[in-house]
Amino acid sequence: MKAVIYKDAFRVAVEEVPDPRIEDPRDVIIKITTTNICGSDLHMYEGRTNVEQGKILGHENMGIVEETGRAVENFKQGDRVSVPFNVACGTCRNCTHGWTSFCLRTNPTEGVDGGAYGYASMGPYSGGQADYLRVPYADFNLLKLPPGTEHERDFTMLSDIFPTAYFGTDLAGVGPGDTVVVYGAGPVGLLAVHSAYLRGADRVFSVDFHPDRLRIAKEFGGIPVSMANGDPAEQVLDATGGMGADCGVEAVGYQAHEPSGEERPEIVMDWLVRSVRTTGRLGVVGVYMPQDPGAATEGAKDGRIGFDFGRLFQKGQSLGTGQCPVKRFNEQLRDLIIAGRATPSKIVSHELALTEAPAAYEKFDRRADGYTKVLLHPAA
Amino acid sequence: MKAVIYKDAFRVAVEEVPDPRIEDPRDVIIKITTTNICGSDLHMYEGRTNVEQGKILGHENMGIVEETGRAVENFKQGDRVSVPFNVACGTCRNCTHGWTSFCLRTNPTEGVDGGAYGYASMGPYSGGQADYLRVPYADFNLLKLPPGTEHERDFTMLSDIFPTAYFGTDLAGVGPGDTVVVYGAGPVGLLAVHSAYLRGADRVFSVDFHPDRLRIAKEFGGIPVSMANGDPAEQVLDATGGMGADCGVEAVGYQAHEPSGEERPEIVMDWLVRSVRTTGRLGVVGVYMPQDPGAATEGAKDGRIGFDFGRLFQKGQSLGTGQCPVKRFNEQLRDLIIAGRATPSKIVSHELALTEAPAAYEKFDRRADGYTKVLLHPAA
Amino acid sequence: MKAVIYKDAFRVAVEEVPDPRIEDPRDVIIKITTTNICGSDLHMYEGRTNVEQGKILGHENMGIVEETGRAVENFKQGDRVSVPFNVACGTCRNCTHGWTSFCLRTNPTEGVDGGAYGYASMGPYSGGQADYLRVPYADFNLLKLPPGTEHERDFTMLSDIFPTAYFGTDLAGVGPGDTVVVYGAGPVGLLAVHSAYLRGADRVFSVDFHPDRLRIAKEFGGIPVSMANGDPAEQVLDATGGMGADCGVEAVGYQAHEPSGEERPEIVMDWLVRSVRTTGRLGVVGVYMPQDPGAATEGAKDGRIGFDFGRLFQKGQSLGTGQCPVKRFNEQLRDLIIAGRATPSKIVSHELALTEAPAAYEKFDRRADGYTKVLLHPAA
Amino acid sequence: MKAVIYKDAFRVAVEEVPDPRIEDPRDVIIKITTTNICGSDLHMYEGRTNVEQGKILGHENMGIVEETGRAVENFKQGDRVSVPFNVACGTCRNCTHGWTSFCLRTNPTEGVDGGAYGYASMGPYSGGQADYLRVPYADFNLLKLPPGTEHERDFTMLSDIFPTAYFGTDLAGVGPGDTVVVYGAGPVGLLAVHSAYLRGADRVFSVDFHPDRLRIAKEFGGIPVSMANGDPAEQVLDATGGMGADCGVEAVGYQAHEPSGEERPEIVMDWLVRSVRTTGRLGVVGVYMPQDPGAATEGAKDGRIGFDFGRLFQKGQSLGTGQCPVKRFNEQLRDLIIAGRATPSKIVSHELALTEAPAAYEKFDRRADGYTKVLLHPAA
Repeated sequence: MKAVIYKDAFRVAVEEVPDPRIEDPRDVIIKITTTNICGSDLHMYEGRTNVEQGKILGHENMGIVEETGRAVENFKQGDRVSVPFNVACGTCRNCTHGWTSFCLRTNPTEGVDGGAYGYASMGPYSGGQADYLRVPYADFNLLKLPPGTEHERDFTMLSDIFPTAYFGTDLAGVGPGDTVVVYGAGPVGLLAVHSAYLRGADRVFSVDFHPDRLRIAKEFGGIPVSMANGDPAEQVLDATGGMGADCGVEAVGYQAHEPSGEERPEIVMDWLVRSVRTTGRLGVVGVYMPQDPGAATEGAKDGRIGFDFGRLFQKGQSLGTGQCPVKRFNEQLRDLIIAGRATPSKIVSHELALTEAPAAYEKFDRRADGYTKVLLHPAA
Repeated sequence: MKAVIYKDAFRVAVEEVPDPRIEDPRDVIIKITTTNICGSDLHMYEGRTNVEQGKILGHENMGIVEETGRAVENFKQGDRVSVPFNVACGTCRNCTHGWTSFCLRTNPTEGVDGGAYGYASMGPYSGGQADYLRVPYADFNLLKLPPGTEHERDFTMLSDIFPTAYFGTDLAGVGPGDTVVVYGAGPVGLLAVHSAYLRGADRVFSVDFHPDRLRIAKEFGGIPVSMANGDPAEQVLDATGGMGADCGVEAVGYQAHEPSGEERPEIVMDWLVRSVRTTGRLGVVGVYMPQDPGAATEGAKDGRIGFDFGRLFQKGQSLGTGQCPVKRFNEQLRDLIIAGRATPSKIVSHELALTEAPAAYEKFDRRADGYTKVLLHPAA
Repeated sequence: MKAVIYKDAFRVAVEEVPDPRIEDPRDVIIKITTTNICGSDLHMYEGRTNVEQGKILGHENMGIVEETGRAVENFKQGDRVSVPFNVACGTCRNCTHGWTSFCLRTNPTEGVDGGAYGYASMGPYSGGQADYLRVPYADFNLLKLPPGTEHERDFTMLSDIFPTAYFGTDLAGVGPGDTVVVYGAGPVGLLAVHSAYLRGADRVFSVDFHPDRLRIAKEFGGIPVSMANGDPAEQVLDATGGMGADCGVEAVGYQAHEPSGEERPEIVMDWLVRSVRTTGRLGVVGVYMPQDPGAATEGAKDGRIGFDFGRLFQKGQSLGTGQCPVKRFNEQLRDLIIAGRATPSKIVSHELALTEAPAAYEKFDRRADGYTKVLLHPAA
Repeated sequence: MKAVIYKDAFRVAVEEVPDPRIEDPRDVIIKITTTNICGSDLHMYEGRTNVEQGKILGHENMGIVEETGRAVENFKQGDRVSVPFNVACGTCRNCTHGWTSFCLRTNPTEGVDGGAYGYASMGPYSGGQADYLRVPYADFNLLKLPPGTEHERDFTMLSDIFPTAYFGTDLAGVGPGDTVVVYGAGPVGLLAVHSAYLRGADRVFSVDFHPDRLRIAKEFGGIPVSMANGDPAEQVLDATGGMGADCGVEAVGYQAHEPSGEERPEIVMDWLVRSVRTTGRLGVVGVYMPQDPGAATEGAKDGRIGFDFGRLFQKGQSLGTGQCPVKRFNEQLRDLIIAGRATPSKIVSHELALTEAPAAYEKFDRRADGYTKVLLHPAA
């Protein structure tokens, strides 16, 4: 089959590789219909991880069941499914407590819990930017979708970024009537705006400095706050009578930087703490890493983010973090899509054939030509 | 009346001052029976705050109702009461949501929510290390106690440190069957050990390097972990099969230091993150401050605590912080004392007359003569 | 002033009565701008309660602060406010735990907790179908509204039925993506449909047999289920593939009856249990009473509702009940109205002068002329 | 192998039957070391169910792994395990939401969710009162225990009644400092007393009329309330200053009767509602059934329990019900046993060989000779 292969820093290729096959009676093989390029794929693309050469990339996958192992009973050939990016066993303590993103069994990497497809340090699982994908523990992991092709562009967001964004609002405790601030208007930040409204928020501020992203935020009902107009925390405080938002979401991560381009890993957390009220909750889904050799400061190389923890304490705030346990949220989000109440596809900028992946990576990495969210269709 | 007055760095005095009087129809005047010296009083004593000269100290107060304002209906002269350290209005949004420690009305200090008695930057409220104390919004703030003198040494912990310690275990989500680690075995840390067991914990590690504190921890059922025996996070990991504790409490604060004495404001948070399992919760009740001119590092002077936030994210941990809303917990803790199930008085080291306060401050600040927790009795 | 007075069964009158005055320093006097007739007012109107002759009716009140007691600090003359129907002290254990509907202090009736304005057995509080209203514990009870007259028809729902409806969905645990069934499409049932969508429901079934009510339900996005088309539980099961709704709301109460008119106090609970899935939650805000002399069965006269509790157990369902603690929800609902996301005024059928109250009671009781929800404007 | 077989009303026998074998790659075969007789086994014994002749009884099982299917990876031969009474698939919506007692896949009975071993209408699963037991979906269902024989009498309570009792306190929301009332001092009621204290209750009333049961309740710290001394609700109200308990547990079920012996299916629910305070929560783990042909009243035959629902509403109480999802609680309870903090074995009255089962059933059914809780050891 064809697959997108990691070759080297700034180089991926579409190559012929062996088809995946059933390796365990609980496996399923999926024929991929849509697979997305994720912002986090660019970390590997840019050579900032230890991903091995030859790895098949892609953790945002959906498709049709092609073949099932003998111990699989919930799915059969022809079923349309979404594949959560987490590879989870379903029976360890974290999985049975709803934390499939921290499965204790699927990642052999020392000190790291939780597996994923096609990703550095997340276990030996090939990605889905390919014709076919092997899914372990399929009865537990797969999410059934209605047959056909309807909502394909929305459903493809269920494997990662829509649940991840929603998780941010869940960690932040967003509820009906809340005023919310979301930092970052990339795909996850935009869907966090969408998610906050789905949970009943009355006002959601979307902070970024790209005018085109803020324009999409507005389509989701977000109130744009541009860093180009000054300190975003001040802007949020002004718009809330000095009180601050009730809760906030961090959807930027450790590569945060000033509008000028200077990397300032603590700047978003500082803004977040300042712009959320006393006792407010913060949901951090922008990624922070314990090791980042390319970081701007000595501390940040070791995961040390010197944000204003003193102020967070003085304000009595709480925060939640981590990779999203997709399975906790994808069923309800699927139902909201089917009911026409959620439309995450608004963020899609490009739909391409799998063979166009190398060019797409290159342009997406440069943020060229409006590349925001790219879907690949292997069969196209 | 007599009262303990802040004079200057390292100097307090017992002086005659005017009696407090009813200033608002919702006030009550309390005749103090017991008032404690708190570790946080030492911040003022050491001259590290901007507390004004002449301030009456003392925020851990209990006593007998002496006089009531005309709009007070829940209490009458002679009632025995505990006074939460928070001065709370009972009607602002934070108070009505259970966050009396972040009352929006009682603290005129710019940018700080929440009032307290006898404390720097917490509003114009005199403390209770005195014969009498004025309590605003008394119907809302006071907690009724059984008449008499029984449990006096236990009840006096209800105004601050027992609820604060319990709050730490609440923020950490401690529940039946959990394994817990508590950093710091000062009064709050010790009562956090006690609280964790009251909530059903099966094992509670108590980390400190003072053998005498670890001995008291053991009386509460705690498993002592001494920093003298090496990295405490490693010790906890070893004792839990490499998994880490289910949740953890930080009861040290920004003045954390190595056993050697070197101040390392991030060291306890680092240990905490490492010694708690993936997805675990952290309750931070050790105090961190947005401004600390005497801090060891430039960042820490501005409240920046460069702990390993990358690892916290990678482990999917969450954390809660802040001053304790005493009223949320003091009723149930009172009932557990009455039922004989809670005995926080185990930490009391000294009971003195009010006039002995200057000497007590001096010795407590030096940790001399086993000074752990000092109770003052004005009437004695 | 003028006020609506209870005279006798099926008779109310508008009469001159003495103006209310400040009786306690914590009181406020409100000049009423809008006061609604509630379905529960009809219980008194029909002579089925022990309400005393001469009682001023009306517990759904809003208006402008006219005068404040000397211990009132949060409100001043001219403030526009909503008055929750609960009279609550703000300092008893139930109030401080968020249960203002079960205040331990404001109702002298033996065995009943919780006070209300203008209602049988709910304490000595005059109602607000009048020019003026006295509000006890005003700092705690009143909700501030933006000045002016905007949203008057929406804000007037904040005193009772919008929070009550929302409480039903809260007790039922309605969350994003849930399928919900609401029994009863009177004012509370209709706003429960609205509330369920505000909380993120994907589908909400609205069950009734009045076509005009089901038409309004549809305006709120509800899926109408008419009893005229057969057993409503069967219809819901059919529409959910036999699974049942995820959760349900009971907004009918003890006077439930068959479409034929036969009173069957257990019939709605039976339908509810059958049409909600295993492990689902039920929010019961339709009123049930421990004594109902006019009930159809011997058991029901003593509050005994013989519904299928065996099936509820077998399905592992849970349920919550009771009068709504308005204060828990009215602030967030106000904010959703201001943001334009909630429009409870859709249910208003009539706006009348206070003097028209007697005719309005008579017609509303007969459900004549489309009387669904009547607003009275004393100043009009 | 030998097994306890249901023959007919009031007749069980120990007979030779075929050994169970691996039927699915996810199965495990357990060699039973301890299996208990449950009060609910007596429903079948007394002929009040439709259980088929020849069924192997027994749903409270523990033992040693004897053989594993090829898709089993978490367990291996020789592992000591507890078997939750629920047969759960681990991948349906109820299982993944923590409701293993309502598995949507394991029970073919129309309209009933949730499977169990050796029980009427709970699916085709043989029981464990036998030498061996087949366990489906073993990776998901089994709980690992420390090797050896220590705590055998405590661990054997983990398969059903200890988690069931704990579930009652969980549904009732028992927390630190709460006053609790538990109706029924059979095995589940007694362990509910134990569980309430493990969760931090300060006082737990245990209501029954058997002096020997109340004596065991006292060993767990319970405060005995004997129906022989009059209306138990009055006694609880008297002991709580008229307020009532904070929350309550129903551990009796549909066969409730007066001390005189007259069956009154609603009497316990009535007492419970009366003796718990306004806004309190009720956990109902005593079994109620939608069909009970042998019931005392016409309504009760159809599951209709005419308790005072009007009063429950007026008090704003909530309640939870249902079969216990054992897996949600058994791990933490196991850890509390290991730590020496939980000792459910106090309720054991007899330990017998499997061959003594017929006599044990007969005596247990008559409550003869102090039969409270009987353990059977097949290997003995």
